[in-house]
Amino acid sequence: MFEATVTIQLKKGVSDPEGVNTLKAIHLLGFTHVKTAKTIRTFDLLIDGDDKAKVAKDVEAICQRLLTNPVIHQYAIDIKEKE
Amino acid sequence: MFEATVTIQLKKGVSDPEGVNTLKAIHLLGFTHVKTAKTIRTFDLLIDGDDKAKVAKDVEAICQRLLTNPVIHQYAIDIKEKE
Repeated sequence: MFEATVTIQLKKGVSDPEGVNTLKAIHLLGFTHVKTAKTIRTFDLLIDGDDKAKVAKDVEAICQRLLTNPVIHQYAIDIKEKE
Repeated sequence: MFEATVTIQLKKGVSDPEGVNTLKAIHLLGFTHVKTAKTIRTFDLLIDGDDKAKVAKDVEAICQRLLTNPVIHQYAIDIKEKE
């Protein structure tokens, strides 16, 4: 069993409307010393199998086919063995 | 300047419809050995100031007043000094 953590964020230069609106709301609450707010999405997958290389390949395929948009996203995959 | 990373996830027992639908889509792609999918939300805040304790208190307040819902979310705050 493996646990794969996929961290997805927007590439530099791509606008992050959710971050922008979060920052606006933070400022409205009076915390004007907060300068930027960025959003990051993480998926935690639990995967059956005993071949780490195969699991890594599958997670890479899942990222490319489903979880991320290569035009706007950059992502990182971290795979850990689990009992 | 400090960088605060706020990691927000659903409490145990709270349903995660986005995770459930992501898992369904992963299965439709043929990766049926993926057993669970969980979503986590992260906010990265850049905050002006030189008092780490005050920054921590502010981020805590931002979490409670804006970013999280204490009924369904648990969150963790990590604060690092930045140049």
